[in-house]
Amino acid sequence: MLNFASDYTEGCHPDVLAALTRTNMEQLTGYGTDIYTTSAKKKIQTAIGCPEADVFFLTGGTQTNQTVIDTMLQKYEGVVAVETGHVNVHEAGAIEYSGHKVLALPAHEGKMDAAELDAFVSAFYADADHDHMVFPGMVYISHPTEYGTLYSKAELLALHEVCSRWKLPLFLDGARLGYGLMSLSTDVTLSDIAALSDVFYIGGTKVGALCGEAVVFTKHNTPRQFVTMVKQHGALLAKGRLNGVQFDALFTDDLYFRIAKNAIERAEELKAVFRERNIPFFISSPTNQQFLVLPNTVLAKLDKAGVLYSRWQPADSDHFVVRFCTSWATTSEQIRALAACLDA
Amino acid sequence: MLNFASDYTEGCHPDVLAALTRTNMEQLTGYGTDIYTTSAKKKIQTAIGCPEADVFFLTGGTQTNQTVIDTMLQKYEGVVAVETGHVNVHEAGAIEYSGHKVLALPAHEGKMDAAELDAFVSAFYADADHDHMVFPGMVYISHPTEYGTLYSKAELLALHEVCSRWKLPLFLDGARLGYGLMSLSTDVTLSDIAALSDVFYIGGTKVGALCGEAVVFTKHNTPRQFVTMVKQHGALLAKGRLNGVQFDALFTDDLYFRIAKNAIERAEELKAVFRERNIPFFISSPTNQQFLVLPNTVLAKLDKAGVLYSRWQPADSDHFVVRFCTSWATTSEQIRALAACLDA
Amino acid sequence: MLNFASDYTEGCHPDVLAALTRTNMEQLTGYGTDIYTTSAKKKIQTAIGCPEADVFFLTGGTQTNQTVIDTMLQKYEGVVAVETGHVNVHEAGAIEYSGHKVLALPAHEGKMDAAELDAFVSAFYADADHDHMVFPGMVYISHPTEYGTLYSKAELLALHEVCSRWKLPLFLDGARLGYGLMSLSTDVTLSDIAALSDVFYIGGTKVGALCGEAVVFTKHNTPRQFVTMVKQHGALLAKGRLNGVQFDALFTDDLYFRIAKNAIERAEELKAVFRERNIPFFISSPTNQQFLVLPNTVLAKLDKAGVLYSRWQPADSDHFVVRFCTSWATTSEQIRALAACLDA
Amino acid sequence: MLNFASDYTEGCHPDVLAALTRTNMEQLTGYGTDIYTTSAKKKIQTAIGCPEADVFFLTGGTQTNQTVIDTMLQKYEGVVAVETGHVNVHEAGAIEYSGHKVLALPAHEGKMDAAELDAFVSAFYADADHDHMVFPGMVYISHPTEYGTLYSKAELLALHEVCSRWKLPLFLDGARLGYGLMSLSTDVTLSDIAALSDVFYIGGTKVGALCGEAVVFTKHNTPRQFVTMVKQHGALLAKGRLNGVQFDALFTDDLYFRIAKNAIERAEELKAVFRERNIPFFISSPTNQQFLVLPNTVLAKLDKAGVLYSRWQPADSDHFVVRFCTSWATTSEQIRALAACLDA
Repeated sequence: MLNFASDYTEGCHPDVLAALTRTNMEQLTGYGTDIYTTSAKKKIQTAIGCPEADVFFLTGGTQTNQTVIDTMLQKYEGVVAVETGHVNVHEAGAIEYSGHKVLALPAHEGKMDAAELDAFVSAFYADADHDHMVFPGMVYISHPTEYGTLYSKAELLALHEVCSRWKLPLFLDGARLGYGLMSLSTDVTLSDIAALSDVFYIGGTKVGALCGEAVVFTKHNTPRQFVTMVKQHGALLAKGRLNGVQFDALFTDDLYFRIAKNAIERAEELKAVFRERNIPFFISSPTNQQFLVLPNTVLAKLDKAGVLYSRWQPADSDHFVVRFCTSWATTSEQIRALAACLDA
Repeated sequence: MLNFASDYTEGCHPDVLAALTRTNMEQLTGYGTDIYTTSAKKKIQTAIGCPEADVFFLTGGTQTNQTVIDTMLQKYEGVVAVETGHVNVHEAGAIEYSGHKVLALPAHEGKMDAAELDAFVSAFYADADHDHMVFPGMVYISHPTEYGTLYSKAELLALHEVCSRWKLPLFLDGARLGYGLMSLSTDVTLSDIAALSDVFYIGGTKVGALCGEAVVFTKHNTPRQFVTMVKQHGALLAKGRLNGVQFDALFTDDLYFRIAKNAIERAEELKAVFRERNIPFFISSPTNQQFLVLPNTVLAKLDKAGVLYSRWQPADSDHFVVRFCTSWATTSEQIRALAACLDA
Repeated sequence: MLNFASDYTEGCHPDVLAALTRTNMEQLTGYGTDIYTTSAKKKIQTAIGCPEADVFFLTGGTQTNQTVIDTMLQKYEGVVAVETGHVNVHEAGAIEYSGHKVLALPAHEGKMDAAELDAFVSAFYADADHDHMVFPGMVYISHPTEYGTLYSKAELLALHEVCSRWKLPLFLDGARLGYGLMSLSTDVTLSDIAALSDVFYIGGTKVGALCGEAVVFTKHNTPRQFVTMVKQHGALLAKGRLNGVQFDALFTDDLYFRIAKNAIERAEELKAVFRERNIPFFISSPTNQQFLVLPNTVLAKLDKAGVLYSRWQPADSDHFVVRFCTSWATTSEQIRALAACLDA
Repeated sequence: MLNFASDYTEGCHPDVLAALTRTNMEQLTGYGTDIYTTSAKKKIQTAIGCPEADVFFLTGGTQTNQTVIDTMLQKYEGVVAVETGHVNVHEAGAIEYSGHKVLALPAHEGKMDAAELDAFVSAFYADADHDHMVFPGMVYISHPTEYGTLYSKAELLALHEVCSRWKLPLFLDGARLGYGLMSLSTDVTLSDIAALSDVFYIGGTKVGALCGEAVVFTKHNTPRQFVTMVKQHGALLAKGRLNGVQFDALFTDDLYFRIAKNAIERAEELKAVFRERNIPFFISSPTNQQFLVLPNTVLAKLDKAGVLYSRWQPADSDHFVVRFCTSWATTSEQIRALAACLDA
C-alpha cells in the first residue's frame, strides 16, 4: 500500500521514539515541569534566536489554535484569517465555540494580502457602527498554508508592519513549519518568524512526533495564567514529558530540520513524476503538499492499486483536485512505486 | 430638527402608551404569566392564522436572534446567513459569543438565493471532511432585509423547500416585519410567513413599541425549557407585562398594520422627493428604509439644516450612500420639510 | 385581590409614567446616546457623590449580573458569592453560561462574612494546586440580600478591606437598593456604597420602573468596549431612552428614595400585623421582604381569600416559610385588609 | 530519589512502549480510524461485557470530563457532583468554561450519597422556582474517588436506581479505574460499571499509558456527531493511533489489570509501613492513593532525603495531610527504601 493521503500516517521519527524509550522509566514531575520539557524549551529558544521567548507544549493543531486565540483575544474581539484558513473551515467551529468570530478575508493561494488586511481594519475603524461589530483582535496566518504555499519574507514583513500599526498580534500557525523552512524556494528563516510574529507554533504532529505543538510567545506577551487556561481548555497533559521528550529530541542535532528536508526532497521527486507525465498542478506548492488535477480514470487506476491520497474538490466532470503529501518518512522507493502505478 | 436616521427615534405609538397607562397600577404576575401577555399571544396566533403557535416576548433584536439561534442549534451546528445579515455584521459577535459560527453566503441586495443555499448545503455533505466542519443547522433571513428589500412569496417558497429538504429550520428575522407586510409591492402575508418559516419574530421596537419582539414557533418546535434558557441569556423580564401590554395593544384593531402602513406611505412620498430631484437610489427598496447616493455637497447642506440620516458607506470621492428611514410616526409635513431643505 | 407575592407587581410609579408620556413623541438618538440618558447619568453621579463614575443602563437583574461579571472577570476567574446569592441559585446558570464559575461561600442570613472571604482567598493562594483551580476574580454581594437583610457599614468596610487587600473588585447587586437605603435600621448611605464597592447597580425594576438597572463603575474601572460587550450579550436597547427617561425621573426630586420609603413604612406596618398575631419571623429583615413561618391552615385561609404571597420552603410538616413583599405601591389599606384576612 | 507524589511519574508500561515501537513505521489512517484503534475498541467491548458499547479515545482526564459532560448536557442543564469532585475543584473551571454549572453535593470520603442525590433532585423539582434554576442533567462520580475510596456495588446500584428514576445519565470518571477494580476490598467488576453507568471512562494516563482515556457509552447513547464535538473541543488527535495502540496493548492479555494489581500490592505494603509506625491514616483508602497525617518533623526528614509526596492540607500546626501514591511501576524496593527513610 502506498499512502500519500497525509503527512501524519506514520508514528514518530525513530530518534524521537528512541528518546521516549530511553527516558521511559525515569520518574518525572507532571504538567510540563519535567527536565526534558525544560531542556526542549531552551533548545527552541536557541533555535529561534530568541532566548527570552516563552515556550509551551500543546498536543494538536486545533487545540493550539483554539487555546492561543481564545487566551490572547479580548471578549469583544475576533481573529482575522483568510477564508481557506484552517481555523475558518476545518476545526468544527472550535474558535466560535470559545466565543470568538473568525473575520474572513479573501485567500490568495491560501495566503493573506497585507494591503487587504490593512484595508479591512481601516474600514472597520472608519465605520461609524463599529462599536456594534466584532473588533479585529489578532491576525492568524498559516505557514505553510493549507495549500502548501509560503509567504516570502517581504510578505511577512508587510503583514508584520500592518499588524504593528494596528496593534494586532500576528499569530503564525506552523503545523507544518519544518516543511516550510526547508523548502527550496523560501527566504524565511525560523528567526525571521520569531521576529515578525507575536506568537507562533512549531508543529510536531506532522513533522516527526506522535503528537505535540510548541507554542512560542516571542514578545513577553504570554497571557496571564496561561497554564490555568490551558487546563481550562482540557489541553494540559498530566505527563507533559510526552511532548517535552519528543521536542527535546526534535531540536537535538537539527533533527527537526533534517527530517523536514527529506519531505521536501521527496516532494521534488513527486513533482517531477507528475510534471513528466504532463499532469497539471492545481497550485504551485514549494512544500510537502502537492495539489494535482487528475482525470477520474487515473484516480480509478490508483484506487485499484491501493494508492491513498486526499480528495480535495471536483475540478470538472472528468477531473478531481487531489492532494499528495510527502513527509519525513517518505522514501524515494515510494515515489518510484507511485510513478509505476501511474504508468501501469 | 428633522430626524430620518432610524425607525426607532420616537417612543411608542400613542395607543400603546395608552394601554401601558391604563394597566399601569394593576397588580400582575411576573415573567410573562400575566393576562395581557396571554391575551397578546392569542391575538398573534389569530393574526398569523396558526392557533397552535407558541409565542414568547423578548426585548430586542440582537437578544432575540442570539436566543433563538442558540437554543435551536445543536452545539456542533452553525447558522447560515447572508454576508450582510444583521447576525453576521452588526451584533458584536453575539452569535459566536453563544458558541456558534455564522456560515455566510453571498447577499443579493440583502437576500439569500435558494439555489445558492442548496448548493452550499449539498457541497457540505459532499465534502469528505465535513465531520471536521461546522454543520449548517438552521437558516437565518431577514424580511425586510437590512437593505429594505423583500422576498417574494416564490422566493420564500424556494427557501422553505430547500430548508425542508435538508431539515434545516428557517428563521425569519422580522425586526421590521410590519413595514414588509404593508409594502405596496409585496405578495407575502403574515400567514405565508407563519406557514413557510419554522420560527420568526414580529418586531415591536421598530414598529410602534418602546421595546419588544414577539418570537413565534410555528411547528410545535419550541426548544425544551425555552423560558429557562431565556433566563440564562439574561433576557427574561421580571415585568413581562411591559412586552405583553404593548403587543396586546399592537394586535388590537390591526394597530400594528395600520401604523406600519403610515411608514410605507411616507416612504413613497420620500422616494418621490428624491426621484423628482434626480437623486439616484443605491438600491430599490419597497419598504421604509431608503438608500440614496447623495453628493457630499448636498449632505453638507442637510447637516447644516440639522437633518439627521444614517451614513452607510462612501460611494466615490464625491458621493456617499446614506439611509433615510420613515416610521409609524413620520408625517407628510416632515417629508415636505426635507424637500424644502434639499431645494434650499 | 391582595398581592404581596413580589415587589414587581405594578407597572411603574406614576411620575415615571408621566415622564415617559411627556417625552414620548420626541425624536431621540438610539442606544443610550439620548439627552435623558445623559441627564439621568449626571443625576446619579450627583446622588452617589462620585462625579467621575461611569453609569450605564441595562434592563434586568440577571442580565446585569451576567454582563458585569463576565466583562470584569478574566477568563480564568470566577466570582465569589454566598450560596444563597441570586447569581448562584436563581439565574438559570447565566454566570456559568458566560464561562465563569460561582465560588460559593456560606451565607449568614444571606450575607457574606468578611473573615470567611479572607480565609477562602488566603487558602486558595496557599494551595499548591491553585493553578489548576478557578481563581477568585471578584466578589458579589447583594444589598439588600435575597432574605431582605442588610450589611452594616462596618461589615461593608470589612469586605471592602479584604477585597482591596486581594485586589478583588467588589460588586454590589442593588436590585432592591432603594429599600435598603431607606431601611430604618441601616447606617449605610448611597455614597458609602459608591465609595466601598468597585461596581454596583441601582435597581429600577423593583423600585418604581417598568424595567431598568443603573450600573455604576466608581473607580475608573469600566471594562474596555463595555458597550460592545453589552451588545454582544444581547443587552443593548435600541430605544435606550426607555431606561434613561425612567431613571431621569427616579432621580429627580428624590423620587427614588421617597417611593422606597413608602415600601419600608408599609413593611413596618406589615411586621406589626404579624407580631401582634404572634406569627414568628423566619428571619429578621429590616427591608421590604418579610419572611414568616405560617401554619398551613392559615395559608389555606389566605389562599381562599385570594391573598398572593411567595412560598419559600417547608418549615415542618405543618408550617411553611413564606415571603410577603411591600413596594413603592403598597398602601396601608392593603396591609389592613391582609390583617382582616388573617383574623377572619 | 523516591517519588510517591503521583501515579503518573513514569512514562508507559514497557509492553505499551513495545506496541508503540512495533507499529511505529506502519502507515495508518488518522483521527482514530486506524486498525489498532478499532482493535482496542473491540477488546474493551469484550472486557466490559457489552459488545454494543461505543468506545472513543481522548487524551486526558479534564479533557474527557469536559467533552463528555458538555456533549451530553442540554444547554440549560448542569452536572451534579460532590464538592470534592475533580470537575468541581481541580479542572480550572473547564466545565463552566463549556457553559455548565457544577451542582455540588456533600462529599462523604469523596463519595456521593444516593439518598442525598435523590433528595436534591426531588427538592429541585418541588421548588416552584425551578424554571429559573440550573436543571440537574447528569451525575458525575469518580471511582476511585479523589481520596482513593471506592463505591460498593450496593452503593453504585443505589446511585443507578436514583439516576434511572430521574432519567439522569450516570457518568463515572475512571481516571484510576484499574486501581479500583484490583482493590482487595471491592465487589465491583468492570461489567458492573458498564451495566450501572451510562457513560464511563477507563483511565490510561494513570494506569500504564503515556496518555489516553477510553470513553465508553454503554446505552446506545452517544451524542450525535460526537467526533465533530470532540474536534470542536480541540480534543481529536490527528494520530489517533497514539491512543489506539496503547489501549490495544493494555487490553491484551489482561495487561491493564495485571499492572493495576501491582499498584494495589505495593499500596498494601505501603500501608503496612505506616501502620507499623503508628502513623495515622487521614482516610481509609483501599486503592493506590494513601492519605497520611504526618508530623512536620517527619516531613522535613523525608524532604531532606529527597522523598517526593503530595502535600494535601494542614492537619494542625504540627501535622500535615500528605498523599503517597503507588502505581503499576512501583517496586517493593521503593517501599522498603521509604521505610528506611522514615526510620532514619
